[in-house]
Amino acid sequence: MKDRYLDFVNSPFGMSIARSLGLPRPEVLRRYRADHAEFGGMAAIGAGPSPALFDDLMAVLSTIGMTSVAHESAAGWLPVAARHGAMSGRFEPRARDALASDRADRVEALIFDATGIVESGQLHALYAFFHDALRSLAKNGRIVVLGRPPATRASVPAATAQHALEGMVRSLGKEARNGITSNLLRVADDASFESALRFFLSPRSAYVSGQVVTIDASSAAPHSWTTPLAGKRALVTGAARGIGASIAAVLAEHGAIVTGLDVETARDALDQTMLSIEDASPSNGAHAALVADIAEPEAPGEIAAALIASGGIDIVVHNAGITRDKTIARMTDEMWDSVIDINLLAQARIDDALLARGVLRDGGRIVAVSSISGIAGNRGQTNYATSKAGVIGRVHAMAPSLRPRGITINAVAPGFIETHMTARMPFGVREAGRRLNSMGQGGLPVDVAETVAWLASPGSAGITGNVVRVCGQSLIGA
Amino acid sequence: MKDRYLDFVNSPFGMSIARSLGLPRPEVLRRYRADHAEFGGMAAIGAGPSPALFDDLMAVLSTIGMTSVAHESAAGWLPVAARHGAMSGRFEPRARDALASDRADRVEALIFDATGIVESGQLHALYAFFHDALRSLAKNGRIVVLGRPPATRASVPAATAQHALEGMVRSLGKEARNGITSNLLRVADDASFESALRFFLSPRSAYVSGQVVTIDASSAAPHSWTTPLAGKRALVTGAARGIGASIAAVLAEHGAIVTGLDVETARDALDQTMLSIEDASPSNGAHAALVADIAEPEAPGEIAAALIASGGIDIVVHNAGITRDKTIARMTDEMWDSVIDINLLAQARIDDALLARGVLRDGGRIVAVSSISGIAGNRGQTNYATSKAGVIGRVHAMAPSLRPRGITINAVAPGFIETHMTARMPFGVREAGRRLNSMGQGGLPVDVAETVAWLASPGSAGITGNVVRVCGQSLIGA
Repeated sequence: MKDRYLDFVNSPFGMSIARSLGLPRPEVLRRYRADHAEFGGMAAIGAGPSPALFDDLMAVLSTIGMTSVAHESAAGWLPVAARHGAMSGRFEPRARDALASDRADRVEALIFDATGIVESGQLHALYAFFHDALRSLAKNGRIVVLGRPPATRASVPAATAQHALEGMVRSLGKEARNGITSNLLRVADDASFESALRFFLSPRSAYVSGQVVTIDASSAAPHSWTTPLAGKRALVTGAARGIGASIAAVLAEHGAIVTGLDVETARDALDQTMLSIEDASPSNGAHAALVADIAEPEAPGEIAAALIASGGIDIVVHNAGITRDKTIARMTDEMWDSVIDINLLAQARIDDALLARGVLRDGGRIVAVSSISGIAGNRGQTNYATSKAGVIGRVHAMAPSLRPRGITINAVAPGFIETHMTARMPFGVREAGRRLNSMGQGGLPVDVAETVAWLASPGSAGITGNVVRVCGQSLIGA
Repeated sequence: MKDRYLDFVNSPFGMSIARSLGLPRPEVLRRYRADHAEFGGMAAIGAGPSPALFDDLMAVLSTIGMTSVAHESAAGWLPVAARHGAMSGRFEPRARDALASDRADRVEALIFDATGIVESGQLHALYAFFHDALRSLAKNGRIVVLGRPPATRASVPAATAQHALEGMVRSLGKEARNGITSNLLRVADDASFESALRFFLSPRSAYVSGQVVTIDASSAAPHSWTTPLAGKRALVTGAARGIGASIAAVLAEHGAIVTGLDVETARDALDQTMLSIEDASPSNGAHAALVADIAEPEAPGEIAAALIASGGIDIVVHNAGITRDKTIARMTDEMWDSVIDINLLAQARIDDALLARGVLRDGGRIVAVSSISGIAGNRGQTNYATSKAGVIGRVHAMAPSLRPRGITINAVAPGFIETHMTARMPFGVREAGRRLNSMGQGGLPVDVAETVAWLASPGSAGITGNVVRVCGQSLIGA
């Protein structure tokens, strides 16, 4: 489905019309392209007192080729840069009367180290930094605030201030517009945040904003950040079309060998999807299509058998799902049961089979697709919302028990994503879904897929039990 | 501020206009009135397997004078009713072709005991119950689902299913309309839910929907449910006007002796508020006005001294707050600092003073006013949203440490409430705030006040660390 409004207001003709009528003009989001540099330009650095992550942050920025300037709140940045042999200057606030069109003095990212903030008076440093720097941030720029998990703080004032960061990050996301994202990483002491920082600085996270991610363990870096999944085997359910096909493709681009699963009636589409992945994939030759109906009781056993045959699996992506929308009074038994079964119970059956037989290897990754409806509920979707809330409950419940094996489990919760499903929505519902978010547009399947790939990365070993919305910071929530 | 649209479409003339134009017609919410029975009519009972709370539920319904009928999912209800000597019949689904205007066969509440649900297939019982019963629910009716805190369940499937209830309850709230609320109580083993159940069945909770409340400890019943706060002393900050004045009044109606606090410039309004409370109050004579500026460092000491003089305090309501809205680039230092200080730091300073000196007695209650902006963030409110997110962080952080003293701390997070503040909003923002929720209208200060009074009740000893939104199930969230 094309978002014709977005295309129109960003055409030369439409742009002038929109300007004269005062219509909103959502930014065309910059997404990852293999033929463009993923990172670049300058980051402005701000900080509260005693920032703990300057060294690690500097190391990441150097590796990805971003230069930096230090805001006055981050006085300690310059010595750290010098120690790393990196150039760094002082951040100069953009003049208020600077031309909006002047892009020379823009920065690509605003990064604030709030880890040392131990009482809410110190939050002033965030104000000072974003007050000075927000207007310097380029279109499609990135805001990343680094904090600590509140529950890990020793004092009530520190936990309070760390939680307060949420309000700041979410408000900035709603103010910034222009395709700018704003996210909070809660980094526990000794946890590694490189994988998360890279993701949230990258165009890969174009439609992920207003999110709070907790990283609570250390992690080895992958052998390569461009193909972090090299040598990994992944299962993607519902892979024939839409979001699932995109997940399969992106995992393959990241180096994984993908088994795409779908039902018999989708066999042709599945074969075609897997074939097109084959052509574009660095690990050519090994991707496989697997036809199974996850609603059938024998499916988990069959899936496990197929994966054992190919030597086990490292990544399981539970994407398969269905909708059977009706208000509850008009919903049939079958509509309820099938949605709960396929969207929720089947995930559990498959994981149980793969975990019990050791098919999912230690250090593995489970990523389950939930939905904004599972968080906020939705009219006409009691069955779907219940199933997707259950997915979140399952992620929370399983994460602790999988830790000893180094397996992480997380959920992604898509908001309005442009698919065949949303293309069939009534016009009003579709337009509301597209516009009621900080990006002013729907997301694309690839936005969900990139988020899944990040969570599936070896570098994300410290991220488990999280729910990450891919919703452009939708207004809708709970 | 009058909601003229709500008045219009509910007038005889406006109703016919609205009908012919297909305009939405938000229900006039039924609120608590001392001259009307708080409870009454019939509740339909549904249940999953092995419901654990039938006995306690039956006891509450008997006490509050509600009769009941058992849905076929709640076969065990009839023997329990018989044991309690209560009449109970079988629930008959309302005929599909029943006249919408026929109110004779309506029930006032749908209550579902989901405590025994240990795997998601069993969620079918919720479907069956609400499928049959939702159309039987009267306007301003109540949906209450009783579940368990997911983290307390022994198995992953049980925790998953218990979390899934959220999606159901929130979706039902969005479907039901007509002033119907839908809420989930997570009742830990051996916790007492009477106070919460009464609140959520009462017209006192008219604007509280889509909420999930955890009750994790037992509680003695108050001496009286009509004046549960008799003999209790309460401090309400920002009591001169608006939500604070309403909180002071409602606490007094519930029997508390209230000290209303506000700044010097609001002295006249404060005196008038306290005087009007005096006239209407069961505990006549003892309410007091206290003038102090909580921004001043000496205020906590002064407040503590004043409260010691009157013998200590049982309930502290942190309601005082300010807004200084501007986008971050245009916000001044003073706008940031004053909002953080008054909305967040002052709460901490006052609590610290009251707790350190034992002015807040064991078994006390702290209720802090947060905001939907503290959850979702808001454009132009980086300072306010940060302060209100901090309030939530503080509630989470303090709850465990106050447990040994029997003190609870909770937050209420108002959505769009009709006050002088919202009356000054631009028309579009105000209308969006009013309509983008399941009630199709703004709330009233009394809705926040009733929620505070419920959390402050002796019966709510088992409720701590919760954030309860008073937002009519606003669409807006995170």
